[in-house]
Amino acid sequence: MKIRGPQEPVCVPQGFRFSCAQAGIKASGKPDVALAEAPAGTAAAAVFTRNRAAAAPVLLGRAHLSACRGRLRAVLVNSGNANAGTGAAGLAAAEDCCAALARSLGVSPRSILPSSTGIIGVPLPAAKIKAALPGLARGLAGGEAALRAFGRGIMTTDLRPKLASAGFKLRGRTVSLAGVVKGAGMIHPNMATMLGYIFTDAAACPAELRAHLKAAADISFNAISVDGDTSTNDTVLLLASGRSGVTLADPGARQPFIAALQGVCRSLAEQIVRDGEGARHLVRLRIEEAGSPDEARAVARSIANSPLVKTSWAGCDPNWGRLFAMLGNSGFPFDPARASIALGPHRVYAKSRALNFDRKAAHKMMQGPEYTIRVGLGRGRASLEFLTCDLTKEYIRINAEYST
Amino acid sequence: MKIRGPQEPVCVPQGFRFSCAQAGIKASGKPDVALAEAPAGTAAAAVFTRNRAAAAPVLLGRAHLSACRGRLRAVLVNSGNANAGTGAAGLAAAEDCCAALARSLGVSPRSILPSSTGIIGVPLPAAKIKAALPGLARGLAGGEAALRAFGRGIMTTDLRPKLASAGFKLRGRTVSLAGVVKGAGMIHPNMATMLGYIFTDAAACPAELRAHLKAAADISFNAISVDGDTSTNDTVLLLASGRSGVTLADPGARQPFIAALQGVCRSLAEQIVRDGEGARHLVRLRIEEAGSPDEARAVARSIANSPLVKTSWAGCDPNWGRLFAMLGNSGFPFDPARASIALGPHRVYAKSRALNFDRKAAHKMMQGPEYTIRVGLGRGRASLEFLTCDLTKEYIRINAEYST
Repeated sequence: MKIRGPQEPVCVPQGFRFSCAQAGIKASGKPDVALAEAPAGTAAAAVFTRNRAAAAPVLLGRAHLSACRGRLRAVLVNSGNANAGTGAAGLAAAEDCCAALARSLGVSPRSILPSSTGIIGVPLPAAKIKAALPGLARGLAGGEAALRAFGRGIMTTDLRPKLASAGFKLRGRTVSLAGVVKGAGMIHPNMATMLGYIFTDAAACPAELRAHLKAAADISFNAISVDGDTSTNDTVLLLASGRSGVTLADPGARQPFIAALQGVCRSLAEQIVRDGEGARHLVRLRIEEAGSPDEARAVARSIANSPLVKTSWAGCDPNWGRLFAMLGNSGFPFDPARASIALGPHRVYAKSRALNFDRKAAHKMMQGPEYTIRVGLGRGRASLEFLTCDLTKEYIRINAEYST
Repeated sequence: MKIRGPQEPVCVPQGFRFSCAQAGIKASGKPDVALAEAPAGTAAAAVFTRNRAAAAPVLLGRAHLSACRGRLRAVLVNSGNANAGTGAAGLAAAEDCCAALARSLGVSPRSILPSSTGIIGVPLPAAKIKAALPGLARGLAGGEAALRAFGRGIMTTDLRPKLASAGFKLRGRTVSLAGVVKGAGMIHPNMATMLGYIFTDAAACPAELRAHLKAAADISFNAISVDGDTSTNDTVLLLASGRSGVTLADPGARQPFIAALQGVCRSLAEQIVRDGEGARHLVRLRIEEAGSPDEARAVARSIANSPLVKTSWAGCDPNWGRLFAMLGNSGFPFDPARASIALGPHRVYAKSRALNFDRKAAHKMMQGPEYTIRVGLGRGRASLEFLTCDLTKEYIRINAEYST
């Protein structure tokens, strides 16, 4: 399945309209509200943050998705304010915005999913958002330019817009799938959040959509880490308008749809890590021979969240001992006598022994923008590719200088 | 109980002798082997790293402590090489060093505890260590100067030696307790380890010593974090010579002994955090109203290991939203409506509401070298004081430039 990146023409799914505007939440005057509208009958599924301090829009979004039985009509996103740590007043503010948008679009408030991203603990300026709604509704349009504008509208400190799309044909009909995303975990503190929206014109019921989204998220958004923090607002939403006339109930559609969805999610996840704050090296961790997928993920996270490992990558340092030390910290059993480690093509450790390798060549490889580290655990058949990046002084500078 | 810091005269426990030497493991020519000898009958207890990639000296130390039934006669420490990731050859090298020292001291090899710290994955230069043993044995001496030399002998990239002691009298007899420590978790990559040795002349059986050490470690060494990494070599050892003539079986001795042990361990733990790589601010996290001690510790670690929170401290930024977001990531239930947060004297959040506070005054307070952050969880009666520090560009510089 060919996946199109942000520089390529977009496979635009039928049935959706988009817009963005400046509500004045951000002092910078950049766009800070964005709207996506879906046609009647659209099926929806979402995955939300597991953080137990979940923000008001996440709590309300979960409730709305359940109340409308997975039939959403719109998504309203604001940046500059996360509406988190705001209690009952925050919930009321999010409800207020949804109600106002519902009147404007002529739909039920419970068919609207709200998303927020930005500073935590500051009351949501609902009046500013509501004042921007008429303009947002008037600006709604279909097509590639509108979808790209929506993608830019959800950006905050992202250096680059993040977009991926794919399409396939089935018996003369074309199914399209396109997604936009911003942030990564909590790497971008101005937004403190990863938000992702994926649109398709396939027809599907909410339950099957949910199963496909969860599987795709596990190998994409849940297989990356920039700084290990889980935000209060993380949300990934998948909307299926059905306008292509192709249904996932058709056995011929399911496999290409899954391939398109997983490919788009993986592309978006990789774009997030590449845009990680201060990151200079993309590292592909291939965890192999794990006892289970959970074990592979836990080992990858132990490595990817270690400040000592991440700083060694920043220094292009083939000091694999730091990484080895993290293999014992995953919470799963670890057997040094069965494990192996390779930095790119350089095998450095196997079966309890340090191997001779060309340290200069390894150092040179690690100066490149991207490389793979393979870890064999010798415990089973599960494997996972996990994307992460180095930890640089630039990350500290960006985050130590924020807010004051 | 008055605890004496590194600048004050040491309460030196009777019965122990110490020495240190240069074996040539480190290229710098600094002392890299240290020896402590205990008299016959000394009781021992230890806590070791929970990392499942535990180093050879940890594996051998556990086995020796069990084989000698908690009656150790000596501790042999080397720096410059962790003897981790070295498999069966590493175990044989550690055994070889213990056997040679046992011959030299005339004790059983199984009564010797080996400790190593330094780079991971490089074979231990056992020949160099063995060649230094005669000099180490000849240099053994009691008293304050020798204890301080042992403390310096285990240092690697520590900026300051770390030492604490305390004493108390019971019916005309004096009990002394003194400890030295190096590193902190994995903050100091040249040693990659925290090692701590505490000596007392109280008399005790190994089982009660173990119980007291575990309780003391839980509120000291297990209540600090610099970068969240757990080393392959962490070890804290407590040796009790009995030479004071006071036994812990005496009910009057137990409480002052526990107070001395916990006070010394807390002082050593605080010295570790103050010497954290690149750290400019010591932060005391007071976690209160937790449902259990485990919950309090998990919440403290969620905060202390968050790069975003630690960088906000580096920037003296009273952006408490980042800390709030971490309260939902501890793995325990979290109720925003019962929680509260205070930065020093400034109450910033309570019961789902951001509180008005003087941001300039809070910023000024956070520019100081040390302050307290209180977190109330509203879930129970458990509380914990946890010490941690900020994450600065200096940390990145130190760790990105290591090894190559």
